[in-house]
Amino acid sequence: MAPKEPLVISNKDEMRKWSRAMRCQGKVIGLVPTMGYLHEGHLTLVREAHKHANVIAVSIYVNPGQFSPNEDLSTYPSDFDGDIRKLMSVPGGVDVVFHPHNLYDYGNDKRNSNVAIESDKTVSCVDQGGFGHETWVRVENLQKGLCGNSRPIFFRGVATIVTKLFNIVEPDVAVFGKKDYQQWRIIQRMVRDLDFSIKIVGSEITREDDGLAMSSRNVRLSMKDRQNALSINKSLLKAKSAAADGQVHSEKLRNLVIQCITEAGGQIDYVEIVDQENLEKVEFINGPVVLCVAAWFGKVRLIDNMEINLKMDVRK
Amino acid sequence: MAPKEPLVISNKDEMRKWSRAMRCQGKVIGLVPTMGYLHEGHLTLVREAHKHANVIAVSIYVNPGQFSPNEDLSTYPSDFDGDIRKLMSVPGGVDVVFHPHNLYDYGNDKRNSNVAIESDKTVSCVDQGGFGHETWVRVENLQKGLCGNSRPIFFRGVATIVTKLFNIVEPDVAVFGKKDYQQWRIIQRMVRDLDFSIKIVGSEITREDDGLAMSSRNVRLSMKDRQNALSINKSLLKAKSAAADGQVHSEKLRNLVIQCITEAGGQIDYVEIVDQENLEKVEFINGPVVLCVAAWFGKVRLIDNMEINLKMDVRK
Repeated sequence: MAPKEPLVISNKDEMRKWSRAMRCQGKVIGLVPTMGYLHEGHLTLVREAHKHANVIAVSIYVNPGQFSPNEDLSTYPSDFDGDIRKLMSVPGGVDVVFHPHNLYDYGNDKRNSNVAIESDKTVSCVDQGGFGHETWVRVENLQKGLCGNSRPIFFRGVATIVTKLFNIVEPDVAVFGKKDYQQWRIIQRMVRDLDFSIKIVGSEITREDDGLAMSSRNVRLSMKDRQNALSINKSLLKAKSAAADGQVHSEKLRNLVIQCITEAGGQIDYVEIVDQENLEKVEFINGPVVLCVAAWFGKVRLIDNMEINLKMDVRK
Repeated sequence: MAPKEPLVISNKDEMRKWSRAMRCQGKVIGLVPTMGYLHEGHLTLVREAHKHANVIAVSIYVNPGQFSPNEDLSTYPSDFDGDIRKLMSVPGGVDVVFHPHNLYDYGNDKRNSNVAIESDKTVSCVDQGGFGHETWVRVENLQKGLCGNSRPIFFRGVATIVTKLFNIVEPDVAVFGKKDYQQWRIIQRMVRDLDFSIKIVGSEITREDDGLAMSSRNVRLSMKDRQNALSINKSLLKAKSAAADGQVHSEKLRNLVIQCITEAGGQIDYVEIVDQENLEKVEFINGPVVLCVAAWFGKVRLIDNMEINLKMDVRK
């Protein structure tokens, strides 16, 4: 069978119209939100979506609302034609690619934009854009800690754009990668708290053959940094194995990871062991936890994580 | 024709199922969100909804998310049977009354609730309730000033519950009273910023024969306070007339209102003249403005407002 070419939609109303027509036909609509420059990890999300839905929409939109002006919005990689080809290579393909131009430009009412900049110390590229957008969704506890520390407006930007995408695409199921673990938990909580009728599926991390977690940012690593960055996955595996062997003291496991990454030339942003649900730090592992890491290699910030689910009988 | 008895739905999934069935039948769905204890003002909203929609849902839910613990949540009046009777008296009636029990109780995951209370100085009755709800929608500029000053968590509570109701009822049109002017503007902006596909209709203030703006709280006024509270509407009319006669200096008009209400025994919360769209204070009237008032009579806080749309040729 020839690969299916997706319908490309850039208009919000058209997107919603398609979705509502599908719903009235009894179809289950799946959404995979992405920022483009797709890799095997994204395609895994699409394959996962096929397990839960009859028709699949993939959104490709680099969201300025989650970037600080000092972050890498302008250099974020893109390759729209390549993305379409990759999506067509997935068995079953995708039905729609939603590719809007600017989801914050309402074409009027820009008078309030300056107020937002004055009143907020930490601004996003949207606040700076002067579009007058002023509504933000925050998941107030889960957005704290981990990536929330070094990227203070990131999760408000993510929760807000996902709300917008949900309201435009109106899916029944949405698939998020567990590589962005905190993001996945935030979206789950947001969906519950705001009564979206959407099932949130978390998809396991896709890794390169050598263990590096796939990321659109990996292409910006130098050869040397790319090699050194393998220390992240290696250290996570080492810590997981140490935990399985009875080391349940978080501080000890953290130090193991920090040492391994630092020795390889990485600069740690954070290494934390947190509860899988509420993402609060744990001193000792006595339930399902996740070991989360963010580290810089050169000018590239990478994140990764590993769930640790100890069986009761191996715990000390 | 016998008055139509509305279907009463308390379950979220059932509510959404009804709405989606209507949509697939091509019906336009109208929503009138209320906190119950309905009066003629609410019925005006329902009549307005009939102009825009084929089927009408009225929600009756006293939202703890917009009340501070020191406010009047526990004494907020209710009369469900009376409400149903009143809704049946409107020509065309209403199709559904959505009357949920507790929209913040998710039946699990209460572990985070304490964190919310510790980290926020101003809490709502939802934070105190310990349900673990932690997602809030804020319209960051419009929520400032006017009622936002004396009720710091009010509009985050309103924006959040309206988002929840929109996600549950999934209407095409929703009608809000312009008596709650700031709320109306906030919901309009939120709908734009979050890409809800919902038309927001503002319905004019309904007044008693003697001019008092209708409110569920009016029943709690003593006979004397009820009489004194007429000063609000009187002062607004006086200011509007002064503006029409050429007095465009906001301070002068404010003072006129303040004096009139204070002399009648009211205690001013605020009197402001603001731009109708962005609700920013204006020093001189040179465009569409609204004069907004909040004042206490006895233990009851009343709000009212009047739009002032001067024709260019009467301006000095």
